[in-house]
Amino acid sequence: MEAIEKANALAVERILTSDPVLIDVMPARDVVPGLKDGMILHAGPPIEWDRMCGPMKGAITGIAVYEGWASDLADAEAKAAAGDFEFHPNHHFDCVGPMTGMTTVSQPMLVVENRTFGNRAYCAINEGLGKVMRFGGNDAEVLDRLRWLRDDFGPALGGAIRHNGGLELKNIIARGLTMGDEMHQRNVACSGLTLRALAPAMAETATDNAVLAKALAFIAGNDQFFLNIAMAMGKSMTDAARGIDGSSIVTSMSRNGTDFGVRVSGTGDQWFVAPVEMPEGLYFPGYSEADANPDMGDSAIVETIGLGGFAMGASPAVAGFVGAGSASDAGNFTRAMGEITAAESPEWTIPAMDYLGVPTGIDIRLVVDTGLAPTINTGIAHRKPGIGQVGAGVVKAPMECFTQALAAFADRMGVS
Amino acid sequence: MEAIEKANALAVERILTSDPVLIDVMPARDVVPGLKDGMILHAGPPIEWDRMCGPMKGAITGIAVYEGWASDLADAEAKAAAGDFEFHPNHHFDCVGPMTGMTTVSQPMLVVENRTFGNRAYCAINEGLGKVMRFGGNDAEVLDRLRWLRDDFGPALGGAIRHNGGLELKNIIARGLTMGDEMHQRNVACSGLTLRALAPAMAETATDNAVLAKALAFIAGNDQFFLNIAMAMGKSMTDAARGIDGSSIVTSMSRNGTDFGVRVSGTGDQWFVAPVEMPEGLYFPGYSEADANPDMGDSAIVETIGLGGFAMGASPAVAGFVGAGSASDAGNFTRAMGEITAAESPEWTIPAMDYLGVPTGIDIRLVVDTGLAPTINTGIAHRKPGIGQVGAGVVKAPMECFTQALAAFADRMGVS
Repeated sequence: MEAIEKANALAVERILTSDPVLIDVMPARDVVPGLKDGMILHAGPPIEWDRMCGPMKGAITGIAVYEGWASDLADAEAKAAAGDFEFHPNHHFDCVGPMTGMTTVSQPMLVVENRTFGNRAYCAINEGLGKVMRFGGNDAEVLDRLRWLRDDFGPALGGAIRHNGGLELKNIIARGLTMGDEMHQRNVACSGLTLRALAPAMAETATDNAVLAKALAFIAGNDQFFLNIAMAMGKSMTDAARGIDGSSIVTSMSRNGTDFGVRVSGTGDQWFVAPVEMPEGLYFPGYSEADANPDMGDSAIVETIGLGGFAMGASPAVAGFVGAGSASDAGNFTRAMGEITAAESPEWTIPAMDYLGVPTGIDIRLVVDTGLAPTINTGIAHRKPGIGQVGAGVVKAPMECFTQALAAFADRMGVS
Repeated sequence: MEAIEKANALAVERILTSDPVLIDVMPARDVVPGLKDGMILHAGPPIEWDRMCGPMKGAITGIAVYEGWASDLADAEAKAAAGDFEFHPNHHFDCVGPMTGMTTVSQPMLVVENRTFGNRAYCAINEGLGKVMRFGGNDAEVLDRLRWLRDDFGPALGGAIRHNGGLELKNIIARGLTMGDEMHQRNVACSGLTLRALAPAMAETATDNAVLAKALAFIAGNDQFFLNIAMAMGKSMTDAARGIDGSSIVTSMSRNGTDFGVRVSGTGDQWFVAPVEMPEGLYFPGYSEADANPDMGDSAIVETIGLGGFAMGASPAVAGFVGAGSASDAGNFTRAMGEITAAESPEWTIPAMDYLGVPTGIDIRLVVDTGLAPTINTGIAHRKPGIGQVGAGVVKAPMECFTQALAAFADRMGVS
């Protein structure tokens, strides 16, 4: 139908003409609209306490202790079960978060502004590898790191970003794609490009070189540092395409470890939900699929803008890391995702594929027609709280989300 | 012959088991053995003043003024022509230098130690893009930058490297190859990896944050910063393979803008020389082949260790930059160089070629037998002094160097 094509062209144009800029790091309390004490935002579509997976419960008890809303983890668990905290999806508050995706008032948030449309999106700072809250970690080491991010690192990074007049992200992504990143499971290039862009300003604004050295080492030591910036960027870009009447383009894909949720431009803020799948991938030594939690996190926002599994062809090294076959076949994933998307990005291109633009704008009609579910590159969490990452892999968005979405979309368009 | 195979196996083993570590930055006077006042080391095989090309003469007059050996450029030129300076190849003093390759007593030198064999090699610090001495630049801006490198940047970088206990280079190259660098015309990844490895130590050892911020910005602003480190590394690795009786493996390829010189392990320090060729490539806007100086610099040392043109398959983005055809064909260059090399590196591999090791150890017998000359990725200088870089391209090592070398090698082996 012509009206759908027109609406989709507008949705894709809004994604592609977005100009995302990292403008600040600020406490969530001061920048996230509507966020209040006692609220805990999580990854994925809405979910209540008793249906949450192990790592999500682990993260929630940890963040409640960090915020001072519980005396210890047991107290936090009792209060959570008693309904003392309000749970909401990050996506309902202009936020995103990787894996468990905890967002609460005291955390320092990366602020990305979409300069074309004026909207903003937020994501907490990536904690690094090992025992971290996004994988359900909640012990003293995890909470101490969050306090350091809040008290030292966040203010230092925010000061440097402001001093720099912001950091334009579109060029960083374009460069990163020529350097083997797909910005979901591989962010080493973009993390380095971010460090080199901000290090001089960090030095100029530093008041204590011990803090400065530790902050530089923190970024330098975390190849996934950029992931959370890419996620806030993705949210700021897809939010610009929300609510376009008649558009069948996906505006978010997101998982809470129990359910996978999809939202579509033309059906507003309705979630289309199905059980999450188990990633297929490679496990770190000592772990296997028996340890794995099902798919989790808001990070699939990067796939909705053509990165991650959609840009696999840019990142032959990630194909091995996520167990997706031989490096030379990485381009096949990108070509397949071209079958379910409305456009190729003119600015984000893949040199090894002779500068093919990344496939952008997932059309639920094409997903259902072709039977090709979106491919997502993902980290794999241990199913028990507090252990952390056990592997990385590839997961499919459940087809049921798209068939539900298409039925609702058809209803709304009067073609049921 | 079995003796040759055995000697070549040893030569290649020495290259491949080398462990190059950037250990310091020090004034050339204090570290380069035999270097004295009045000596000017240059790129390529030996050459006298009257046969030097324009950019080489431009750099020599500039460096003489910088060292205080001449009052101005005209005075320097008169003194050079009168024989007041001693000219020697960098390669005769354990040094290398890109393009004109000026090395003199006051310059701060990157010091790379090959920890496996204990030898050291040296290279000056990359000056950045634009008007620079390596392309023949010699005005006040160029000399002021050299003074800043000597007085501020070199000591800051050296202090950080020492504080860090050195910087192991082999891992950086391995990572850079997964990030689109070939370490000759593309060093953006390795420059970033170096910055992130040293920035924390630079902060810890800084005494003045204005200097620190400028130093960080200098590295961050120069995508080719790592080239000179890669060159000193290459020299330290190939020097370990010098002088192996019976080996037909190339230990250096180097150009002075007039002549191309090759040295071979089994023929000691003899140069096999032929006229340099003109690179074929792409020119910056406003320039053409009519402006180009023929091939120049010691930087082809990186091709002798399997990088640069030999690792083109790792760097589809560089194929476009140097005008070497479509990005997807970049692997063909690497495969062709596999025809003239004795081994594939087990540690430096190319993900997009399913982790093929870079072709290492050029065998002059294979070059002559196949008629395949080594492919070198190179910058192109303006033929007039003081203008700078006008393009980038691909150039072939002249076949005549290899036929000469093979004749001398055969002589020495008693099979003329």
